[in-house]
Amino acid sequence: MKHVSVEGELSEVSGIKASGQKKLMLFTGRADPDLAREVADNLHVELTPTSAYDFANGETFVRFLESVRGSDAFVIQSHTAPINQWIMEQLIMVDALKRASAKRITVVAPFFGYARQDKKHRGREPISARLMADLFKTAGADRLITVDLHTAQIQGFFDGPVDHLFALDLLARHFESRLDTSQVTVVAPDAGRVRVTERWSDRLGGVPMAIIHKKRDPDVANEVKVFDVVGEVEGRTCVVVDDMIDTGGTIVKAADALFDHGATRVVVAATHGVLSGPAVDRLKNSRISDVVLTNTLPIPMEKQFDKLTVLSIAPLIARAINEVFSDGSVTSLFGGHS
Amino acid sequence: MKHVSVEGELSEVSGIKASGQKKLMLFTGRADPDLAREVADNLHVELTPTSAYDFANGETFVRFLESVRGSDAFVIQSHTAPINQWIMEQLIMVDALKRASAKRITVVAPFFGYARQDKKHRGREPISARLMADLFKTAGADRLITVDLHTAQIQGFFDGPVDHLFALDLLARHFESRLDTSQVTVVAPDAGRVRVTERWSDRLGGVPMAIIHKKRDPDVANEVKVFDVVGEVEGRTCVVVDDMIDTGGTIVKAADALFDHGATRVVVAATHGVLSGPAVDRLKNSRISDVVLTNTLPIPMEKQFDKLTVLSIAPLIARAINEVFSDGSVTSLFGGHS
Amino acid sequence: MKHVSVEGELSEVSGIKASGQKKLMLFTGRADPDLAREVADNLHVELTPTSAYDFANGETFVRFLESVRGSDAFVIQSHTAPINQWIMEQLIMVDALKRASAKRITVVAPFFGYARQDKKHRGREPISARLMADLFKTAGADRLITVDLHTAQIQGFFDGPVDHLFALDLLARHFESRLDTSQVTVVAPDAGRVRVTERWSDRLGGVPMAIIHKKRDPDVANEVKVFDVVGEVEGRTCVVVDDMIDTGGTIVKAADALFDHGATRVVVAATHGVLSGPAVDRLKNSRISDVVLTNTLPIPMEKQFDKLTVLSIAPLIARAINEVFSDGSVTSLFGGHS
Amino acid sequence: MKHVSVEGELSEVSGIKASGQKKLMLFTGRADPDLAREVADNLHVELTPTSAYDFANGETFVRFLESVRGSDAFVIQSHTAPINQWIMEQLIMVDALKRASAKRITVVAPFFGYARQDKKHRGREPISARLMADLFKTAGADRLITVDLHTAQIQGFFDGPVDHLFALDLLARHFESRLDTSQVTVVAPDAGRVRVTERWSDRLGGVPMAIIHKKRDPDVANEVKVFDVVGEVEGRTCVVVDDMIDTGGTIVKAADALFDHGATRVVVAATHGVLSGPAVDRLKNSRISDVVLTNTLPIPMEKQFDKLTVLSIAPLIARAINEVFSDGSVTSLFGGHS
Amino acid sequence: MKHVSVEGELSEVSGIKASGQKKLMLFTGRADPDLAREVADNLHVELTPTSAYDFANGETFVRFLESVRGSDAFVIQSHTAPINQWIMEQLIMVDALKRASAKRITVVAPFFGYARQDKKHRGREPISARLMADLFKTAGADRLITVDLHTAQIQGFFDGPVDHLFALDLLARHFESRLDTSQVTVVAPDAGRVRVTERWSDRLGGVPMAIIHKKRDPDVANEVKVFDVVGEVEGRTCVVVDDMIDTGGTIVKAADALFDHGATRVVVAATHGVLSGPAVDRLKNSRISDVVLTNTLPIPMEKQFDKLTVLSIAPLIARAINEVFSDGSVTSLFGGHS
Amino acid sequence: MKHVSVEGELSEVSGIKASGQKKLMLFTGRADPDLAREVADNLHVELTPTSAYDFANGETFVRFLESVRGSDAFVIQSHTAPINQWIMEQLIMVDALKRASAKRITVVAPFFGYARQDKKHRGREPISARLMADLFKTAGADRLITVDLHTAQIQGFFDGPVDHLFALDLLARHFESRLDTSQVTVVAPDAGRVRVTERWSDRLGGVPMAIIHKKRDPDVANEVKVFDVVGEVEGRTCVVVDDMIDTGGTIVKAADALFDHGATRVVVAATHGVLSGPAVDRLKNSRISDVVLTNTLPIPMEKQFDKLTVLSIAPLIARAINEVFSDGSVTSLFGGHS
Repeated sequence: MKHVSVEGELSEVSGIKASGQKKLMLFTGRADPDLAREVADNLHVELTPTSAYDFANGETFVRFLESVRGSDAFVIQSHTAPINQWIMEQLIMVDALKRASAKRITVVAPFFGYARQDKKHRGREPISARLMADLFKTAGADRLITVDLHTAQIQGFFDGPVDHLFALDLLARHFESRLDTSQVTVVAPDAGRVRVTERWSDRLGGVPMAIIHKKRDPDVANEVKVFDVVGEVEGRTCVVVDDMIDTGGTIVKAADALFDHGATRVVVAATHGVLSGPAVDRLKNSRISDVVLTNTLPIPMEKQFDKLTVLSIAPLIARAINEVFSDGSVTSLFGGHS
Repeated sequence: MKHVSVEGELSEVSGIKASGQKKLMLFTGRADPDLAREVADNLHVELTPTSAYDFANGETFVRFLESVRGSDAFVIQSHTAPINQWIMEQLIMVDALKRASAKRITVVAPFFGYARQDKKHRGREPISARLMADLFKTAGADRLITVDLHTAQIQGFFDGPVDHLFALDLLARHFESRLDTSQVTVVAPDAGRVRVTERWSDRLGGVPMAIIHKKRDPDVANEVKVFDVVGEVEGRTCVVVDDMIDTGGTIVKAADALFDHGATRVVVAATHGVLSGPAVDRLKNSRISDVVLTNTLPIPMEKQFDKLTVLSIAPLIARAINEVFSDGSVTSLFGGHS
Repeated sequence: MKHVSVEGELSEVSGIKASGQKKLMLFTGRADPDLAREVADNLHVELTPTSAYDFANGETFVRFLESVRGSDAFVIQSHTAPINQWIMEQLIMVDALKRASAKRITVVAPFFGYARQDKKHRGREPISARLMADLFKTAGADRLITVDLHTAQIQGFFDGPVDHLFALDLLARHFESRLDTSQVTVVAPDAGRVRVTERWSDRLGGVPMAIIHKKRDPDVANEVKVFDVVGEVEGRTCVVVDDMIDTGGTIVKAADALFDHGATRVVVAATHGVLSGPAVDRLKNSRISDVVLTNTLPIPMEKQFDKLTVLSIAPLIARAINEVFSDGSVTSLFGGHS
Repeated sequence: MKHVSVEGELSEVSGIKASGQKKLMLFTGRADPDLAREVADNLHVELTPTSAYDFANGETFVRFLESVRGSDAFVIQSHTAPINQWIMEQLIMVDALKRASAKRITVVAPFFGYARQDKKHRGREPISARLMADLFKTAGADRLITVDLHTAQIQGFFDGPVDHLFALDLLARHFESRLDTSQVTVVAPDAGRVRVTERWSDRLGGVPMAIIHKKRDPDVANEVKVFDVVGEVEGRTCVVVDDMIDTGGTIVKAADALFDHGATRVVVAATHGVLSGPAVDRLKNSRISDVVLTNTLPIPMEKQFDKLTVLSIAPLIARAINEVFSDGSVTSLFGGHS
Repeated sequence: MKHVSVEGELSEVSGIKASGQKKLMLFTGRADPDLAREVADNLHVELTPTSAYDFANGETFVRFLESVRGSDAFVIQSHTAPINQWIMEQLIMVDALKRASAKRITVVAPFFGYARQDKKHRGREPISARLMADLFKTAGADRLITVDLHTAQIQGFFDGPVDHLFALDLLARHFESRLDTSQVTVVAPDAGRVRVTERWSDRLGGVPMAIIHKKRDPDVANEVKVFDVVGEVEGRTCVVVDDMIDTGGTIVKAADALFDHGATRVVVAATHGVLSGPAVDRLKNSRISDVVLTNTLPIPMEKQFDKLTVLSIAPLIARAINEVFSDGSVTSLFGGHS
Repeated sequence: MKHVSVEGELSEVSGIKASGQKKLMLFTGRADPDLAREVADNLHVELTPTSAYDFANGETFVRFLESVRGSDAFVIQSHTAPINQWIMEQLIMVDALKRASAKRITVVAPFFGYARQDKKHRGREPISARLMADLFKTAGADRLITVDLHTAQIQGFFDGPVDHLFALDLLARHFESRLDTSQVTVVAPDAGRVRVTERWSDRLGGVPMAIIHKKRDPDVANEVKVFDVVGEVEGRTCVVVDDMIDTGGTIVKAADALFDHGATRVVVAATHGVLSGPAVDRLKNSRISDVVLTNTLPIPMEKQFDKLTVLSIAPLIARAINEVFSDGSVTSLFGGHS
């Protein structure tokens, strides 16, 4: 047994010591830099300068203009249209951070794209929400911060910590000062929202609840649906609560059904203003009197209208990032309920 | 560059060819061998002889008494109490199959344990349903067959194909012949079941729906809940539908609330009969007239009672296994909707 | 030690046997269904019916209209603009196939997107080509078929088999019958293409070679580049060979430089016709007399012009798919050189 | 190439810096909180308040009552009966810690469950010890601390650092002061323990050794075994050393064989007191004069008896945790031999 | 919601079907092609032609000269000196097979290298046996076939099926016909071999056993060891059984100790003939009368000597490969004990 | 629901806090301890004492003689001949560091072995460079530092950060002071080096470039190649630049071709001096007047010759390690271009 000791003497103190330090760095994709800047302002930090552009054939390129080595990196991107473009850009940013030796990478997706494809509704469908979670993991994301997931189960799609923030308090505070809650009934626009509606009912002091039941029309063949109202809304101020407003079709039909059943006023609260296609026109032309959203998705000037109020989610995201960076408690932001 | 060609001549036909064959093998843990035997009978196959026992300190041991090499293995286990014991046994069976060269391993869990812990309700909780999915993957499971998951999103917790079966048709057929559906209102016992209740409403031809709303009592402090009924149940036959009956507390209180609101009859349908603790006594002593369950979980003689009907899930599981083995379509078992 | 043998007797023949079978299925995304149909025709197979569309906010949805269980699935997608959209669609298709129990999934990307981002040119850049390979793996792809990768090293980015096809023979045969090869010099438009140019030189019988050298202009500050010609082109027919033509800027300047150095004719051969932005106008208005491409990327009518010839890559892809399906040899398609 | 620089100016100091800190937190499952408290006392730390209970159907639930974000978490659980229950609880605790952003998670299993199933004794058996190691890894464990593994190879089952502690010194010190080592022969109760017995022989100054050889009885058919003694024990004080005492059957038969061969006294030392089934009665009624164990497994009052001494392993575990937390050396605890 | 159905009509039979087939292919590295050829002959198969050589700087290159697509590939390599060279070659062969689309890859390592480094003997050591198992997995190996692992726990180091073969029957049959077993005592040369020695004792009909105990010399300082004999060997024929003979030092000293204690004859049986350094001289010059080995490692002419018998392991390996290929039972080769 | 709170009271401050610290430790394998010592000297740090040796059968053993727990470990090894031996040793060192709880492990491979096998040149070849990257990852390496990879794409083979250093500046500075750059033409010895040659042309102020074109001899059958010179070298001082010199055959023939085409002087610059087989003799006897290499690979005395200059790479590696340890910027070492 030939023994070749590389270093014969046993020194007591090989190595150099240095005190550890951690550095928060904030990055934004191009989907909604305004929100990112607002978060940065709330944190009293600058966004790290980044060069991002598309090549002529649509390939996305990203480069950071400062060293990110050893940083605790938070990458903000709104999953707004064109959503595949922006998700891919965020994945590429995460890859670049990983290869540039960021210490920890947190994906901040105020609206988590593809959240509605969270199960196979029928055979041979994808579960794209799980796929997105896996893609972020593969690119190098260590953790996720997001707001009001379409279903809370999506937390479990990501193999790592997820900080799930709630806009309920932000939205509810808006209504408390503006509505007589004794007149309020909260309404779930479909079966999937009943749980959230219950949380609103509790938050507003135990107000009654109603549900829109989309049932097959027994008098007409095929898939025609009628909007039935389950629960009592006669003479009530209805607060329809949803996680997102996409094309607005469901929410406007729900409002019509509520008025048909005697509601005196219908207002709408939702976290995510997708507002795609005919949404703005539908809402403007509807009998809904108020629509309240947050800016988890950008709502450009041309989509804004009189009845619409947009509340900023930036302070909440900033507080969550700060808790994560400083090893505090995100749960404490929600009275122990996150 | 020294070249040492191992075999100089280029023969046309190195190797031996043989025609491929596949072999279905069915295994059962000790939680509910009766169900497994019933599935086996439906498939006209024998359960593979297996030795399973616990050592004195509770460690579980499993050994297969026949070669399983190259098999398409299906491992059935009911996640009944003591549930940790039976899940661990199924994990150990999967490990043994993997190491004994089974070609493909399908975990058959008619009731998927820990399904209710599918999200963090509050901070610092586990997501045990995802954990279980990951444990099965780690042990060596390639795929999953299960019935009526607590939430459909759990499909997305497993990184592989999940065949999700529905007992709706089995349960609904039972009632169609026994109730006057024109008198029926289907009732969701809580917010989480509204979506399933809608499916029942459609299945029974568009019958009305109601929801039990557990709301905070505005007159009493703290977390006291009252069971409110949202929707019209006066003079109706209420079919309360749930995925499982555990302690029976919620379902009995729901029935009381329905009678309080004028219901003339209350029957209950659920897929999984957990029936733990006081469940049987509560149901027996309640005003509920019929309880219909399936045997995804074993319901021993001492838990059976007059009002209870147990339908066998075995034929459905057997058909699913057969479709999986023969590369058929599980979706087709549910009219294209699985 | 309590022993509970599940099945006491040792039967000789538990299990059912059946003979194995394999089934090729061909799928296409929406980027270029024409190419996919042409491949299908060459294989005498139908594309599997698929429903694919975008939701209003841009989220992509895919569902297969036939059972794919147990299939050997090939998913064709052209990585053309909007490239992030089409890559994401292909990822989602792979996810749906995995969850629907396809046995093996092969991604067919005739042009592999992001191939040019195959290394960090400077610090803090992504290596997007590796990222794409990892994303496909994560979604569930078992293998890859592609044509003329930007650099052959990209094969190594995918953790699994890659069948790398070459269009050289297809393109070269076109020129052999149309040019006097004794007058030909093959030209690399930049340093990265010299290796491919050597292969063309060999393929055309050892014709001379020249290289365009983009060097810094010593007389002008900063990054201004001049196009120098290394090698002799006076009086020659220059065949400029590239893997792709993107904006056409480089290739047109290269042609100008060749004419400046006395070339009598310049023709261009490339596998991938990205043809983005001003490419078509530049080529039309240039002194280049012939441009030959393949249809690995779709070239719509409005991008076609007189000097352009488009050769179909579909027969080559079809032959490769057939070899893969039938466990033949893809290498043999290229005289042992793939 | 359209260039959209997200942030135009290059600031020198984007980001916030803070000095790093680390925080040890100690958690215990419900299997043996007494041991955990003793470890905590030795470390001068409080156990982190935790809520843990079982649902009616046996599903385990755990929640931490304090923020654990960023902590260096040590999770102590005794793998005592019902062992599957306690291992599952520890897995669920690890999952909850991972999702609550603990920085590093160390599983402390003083007795590592399923250690005896560390190989396939025959075909088609599991290797449950490897499975357990993989399950802990999957749940999120970064490292393992354990005492006297059944075989040292189990260290290699875990894909990460394992700190393997030895109780030899603790146990041997007990005997040194109580026995005349010149009269001692150390005895391996079976072939698997010979290596450990050698270490005892060395530790006690080179005392002689004997081995119990379970051999097939040549006069009787089938698997009947006789306990033969290899080595000289006539007139000696025999110290039988084992890693664990389970049902006590082997150890008592070994003692009988030693007395049959002339031993004057037999004492027993083992690290893990499994003491299942008839163990206590067997030991009490045997001619063994002393049994010395540690509390790696809880030994309740009703299992204690006159001849039994239980030494506490808590100080050793506490020292190991402290070395791990403070980046010291666990090896140094064992004179360089761990 | 814009709907673009890729293929409008729903054809019943998209796809092509073909019957599955499997093909055994046998590959050998350069370490010991003779053994591989012998295995091939036993299987009536040709080794697949392979080109393997080293570049001038020692880098190893491998290429298969026939298509391996879809094959059930078995790669034989003896882990003989220079062992790092041959293990690396086998890893590279596995990588090439994976990338060339072999369907299943089995590493056949008759002697599994680094098996002795199966645990950390002291702190800061590698567990190289686990590392090797992981390296083979990473390269693409699906399964392992090996003979007489140093410790059976190494099976658990590989995350997949391991077929562990035993040479005991082959070696024991040799002695049964040549020795009077009533005179035989089987001897373990150290503590780690006692378990195997017990199996020999059983195999030879319950013959007595003895153990060599290397104990610290109480009269001399430091690590000097004396070879003590535990058990009775006076007048006996001692069969010393080991898994391997490396330098022969231990085995020769063991033999001396046995003769010192009155043994009349000493023979040696071991599976693996490492025979490094002075081994041959030591054995030749010792009082050992017979040494029996197998050819799991090549034993070149110059290492052979009169007292040495080498039995071929090739028939056993060939039978195991055949069982694996044809989905038979390897366990059955050992009377149910593998 | 039975509730057993483990710790009833909610203490504010469970846990112990301590300030974080990081510790750089430097390790070397046995391939070239001199380089490692030089790096250590540049960093003002001691190499950590390590015991490394080979067992008689060639198995490598490594043990660190100091605690490495919590360290930021850098493991230097030259991938020189016998290269498989040294790569395996480095893998084993990484495994030992991982198991001994090093916090982060960086593999420093100044010359990355197997880099030339970075793609499949033909079918059924390995991609060994990717395999090596995967093996290091599997063993436990978190990151890689290397110099002048054969192709930059190899960065993408490693799933983690790679710091890719360039010797261009070191080598170019040597020539700038010794040659009249107005007379210089830089020459690529083959197609794969043209890109690097362009960088040299830029670095030396835009000097002209030429390429050696190995083309098939049209007059001779089969694979005979002639060395053609593309570009003008008449009367020029040719600087042939390569990443490595292996057997020297190509470089010497290239030099001959340059002289044949009228070059007045030929000098050679390369980063890696593999210098295997006849390299030294070929270079000595050639008309090349100067050869400049670095010591990324050891160049022993007997391989040194008059015309050879060896520049030390140690300062560059030391600076990179320092930037990595202190979270600085490696990019900044190369004017922002790494």
